[in-house]
Amino acid sequence: MTMEKITLNYARTLSFIDQACIDALSGDVELHHRALWEKTGKGNDFLGWVHLPGAIADADLKQMDETGQLLRDKKIDLLVVIGIGGSYLGAKAVIDALSDSFAAMKPQQAPLVLFAGQNIGEDYLFELRGLLKGKDYALMVISKSGTTTEPAIAFRLLKQDIEEKYGREEARTRIIAVTDASRGALRKLALSEGYQTFVIPDDVGGRYSVLTPVGLVAIATAGFDIRALVRGAADMAVNSGPQVPFSQNLPAQYAAVRNLLYRQGRMVEILVNYNPKLHYFSEWWKQLFGESEGKEGKGIFPASVDFTSDLHSMGQYIQEGERKLFETVLSIKSPDHEVVIPADADDLDGLNFLAGKRVDEVNKMAELGTTLAHVDGGVPNIRIEIPRLNEYYLGQLIYFFELACGISGYTLKVNPFDQPGVEAYKKNMFALLGKPGFENETRAIMDRLGE
Amino acid sequence: MTMEKITLNYARTLSFIDQACIDALSGDVELHHRALWEKTGKGNDFLGWVHLPGAIADADLKQMDETGQLLRDKKIDLLVVIGIGGSYLGAKAVIDALSDSFAAMKPQQAPLVLFAGQNIGEDYLFELRGLLKGKDYALMVISKSGTTTEPAIAFRLLKQDIEEKYGREEARTRIIAVTDASRGALRKLALSEGYQTFVIPDDVGGRYSVLTPVGLVAIATAGFDIRALVRGAADMAVNSGPQVPFSQNLPAQYAAVRNLLYRQGRMVEILVNYNPKLHYFSEWWKQLFGESEGKEGKGIFPASVDFTSDLHSMGQYIQEGERKLFETVLSIKSPDHEVVIPADADDLDGLNFLAGKRVDEVNKMAELGTTLAHVDGGVPNIRIEIPRLNEYYLGQLIYFFELACGISGYTLKVNPFDQPGVEAYKKNMFALLGKPGFENETRAIMDRLGE
Repeated sequence: MTMEKITLNYARTLSFIDQACIDALSGDVELHHRALWEKTGKGNDFLGWVHLPGAIADADLKQMDETGQLLRDKKIDLLVVIGIGGSYLGAKAVIDALSDSFAAMKPQQAPLVLFAGQNIGEDYLFELRGLLKGKDYALMVISKSGTTTEPAIAFRLLKQDIEEKYGREEARTRIIAVTDASRGALRKLALSEGYQTFVIPDDVGGRYSVLTPVGLVAIATAGFDIRALVRGAADMAVNSGPQVPFSQNLPAQYAAVRNLLYRQGRMVEILVNYNPKLHYFSEWWKQLFGESEGKEGKGIFPASVDFTSDLHSMGQYIQEGERKLFETVLSIKSPDHEVVIPADADDLDGLNFLAGKRVDEVNKMAELGTTLAHVDGGVPNIRIEIPRLNEYYLGQLIYFFELACGISGYTLKVNPFDQPGVEAYKKNMFALLGKPGFENETRAIMDRLGE
Repeated sequence: MTMEKITLNYARTLSFIDQACIDALSGDVELHHRALWEKTGKGNDFLGWVHLPGAIADADLKQMDETGQLLRDKKIDLLVVIGIGGSYLGAKAVIDALSDSFAAMKPQQAPLVLFAGQNIGEDYLFELRGLLKGKDYALMVISKSGTTTEPAIAFRLLKQDIEEKYGREEARTRIIAVTDASRGALRKLALSEGYQTFVIPDDVGGRYSVLTPVGLVAIATAGFDIRALVRGAADMAVNSGPQVPFSQNLPAQYAAVRNLLYRQGRMVEILVNYNPKLHYFSEWWKQLFGESEGKEGKGIFPASVDFTSDLHSMGQYIQEGERKLFETVLSIKSPDHEVVIPADADDLDGLNFLAGKRVDEVNKMAELGTTLAHVDGGVPNIRIEIPRLNEYYLGQLIYFFELACGISGYTLKVNPFDQPGVEAYKKNMFALLGKPGFENETRAIMDRLGE
């Protein structure tokens, strides 16, 4: 079988930027690419993801698969994953992309995966606890430290509930901890309680963690093929290594093109899909790029739309609003199912010209028609085609964006692997809540608010 | 009982723009406000929404309520609403805001409302049809013309299915059409089949239609109080009429402040919530403002985040990325349920300083801490406080934004009630699909693609 490949087509940016400029930037991009590969650039403590996909031990994958199988064998209804940021979006993106659109309402072979600790919604937690009362479930808590506020609150509550429901002994077998190898509150608790644990590698940041146990255990539990996912990523790593010339190197091309568009004043990149199952993949992408590049007063603002739905909401703006946008389209070549538009004797709706066509054919013409209209309207278009929405190609796509993001961040001359700005709200929040150790900050913020 | 009010606080924009400038713009804003009220401005054929909430006949509300009651009495599992744009987002926003976060997984008193025809996803339609096979359901199709591609395809398929499942006679009693009073394919079909129908007013555009049968019938069917929703909107209309001075006029203030921030080069407005139930309210808002203002190369780009979730994805960018943003926060004063953080003897997670506090108290301090951090980082902050997330206040909020959008669009000197850019992709799509009547366009686009 010939394996199809993900393709990247930036031809429809070339009425806005010159191929000569792209070529001129390619040397720079190649240097940054090599710096990633050889860990010589900024943030090189957090480059574990670069060589990760090809290096995951088979025994580790086996253990994750077995954990998933064990939970499926228990016939539990739900796995509640407690995590925020990268500990939430990676698994959510992959599971949503691969699941039936109405999975929550259909009988399932595998537990449904829900999330907690990704917000501090009191009603959300109340309603989740209400749901869990009537369900058979397990918990997976993901936190390097075990003290991140959102997941720590959710875990404190849900741990109490699961121990009440099943008894402490049984509850211990229903809690999985994904945490630091040796340090931190969650590791300590897991040791003392005897939870099954998986390790978050030290050198992989949250937003790059989907191919570690952070993402993989939940994905395996939901019944998906994590080996294919990892293989896809590993294949993309091989096909886009620094030895692969720019003219064939998709992540390098994407990094170059988006930087040139940004230098032209295009501040907003819109990730477009034509399949709503990719909605959370776009959310994962927004974290990846937003958190990696949005610093030092710079960076492309990442936005996303689900077309054709949002052609009837954001479509007007994209067509005719501020000309500071560009689009990157994720287009899935082949859907999984077939639906043919039927003929109708009366043809009141005038759709008989489509009779006998597959729904996806209309979707593809909507895509092409939209692309042409937006390019005509002044919006450059990058197109990424994915052969099918399965584990293997999702793995490719994940690694494609991770690598492109690293290269792109270096090209922008920022450290794409830190996130100093995320601490600012936490410090204020702790001060406002009177957290021990924040006494000075509490005094300062109270003075300020008293003004 | 003293009715609490929605409040607007723009104090945290005043280190970026001067109150004097706001005051200076208020005269302009008042003129635009009056032009809306008196229908003397651009797009005045589509101002039916301005006086709508106070003018809805009780008999109409009664009929919508009764339709909802009838569907609930039938004990159907699902109502599938077929519509796109405003015929999708209004009902979706209100129903999601008022529903249990896990409604699809809990026994319900009222049918769940699902949507179709809001995309052209082949897998989505296939999976929806699979779901419907095992459920008891009704259809509501919303389209002024009956020929909009997305809903027309979905309705053609689902009409066939429902007739097969229940027989044509019974199916007729399970299909409701919301359409033009007299013209169009859907009106014609509804007449010949004898469907129950509701009218889309001629002078209300899609994005302003949630308080017409377009939104209200589905909301009533889902078991919510449409009278309270409409009353909220009517109260906001009274409290923000052109006779209400600028200093007390919330929509006018919001329109002025956001225009001044935009004139300063702040191209992106981020609508922020701290309750994920408002996720689709933000999508509704994006259509309202994006489609109304994004034209003539102008307009604020509307984006949205769910905090604190997205503080761990977009938070870094908002804190430190391009300084061309401002935030508008929707803050719900009181949650519906109470969850108290318990004490823990070991306190490994270090959360005992929060023991005894409600989860929402932490959420509120996260909000305040974030606001201060973002303002310090150069992001102006507008805050809208909603006393509770119920029908009455949602009605207020809907009218608040509708009116603010009209005023804001006039202040921007565009016609906020047209959407010429939405046609561009459709024309190309029809040409590509060989739609009868588009022969010249088909030839032109084929030539272009052949190049």
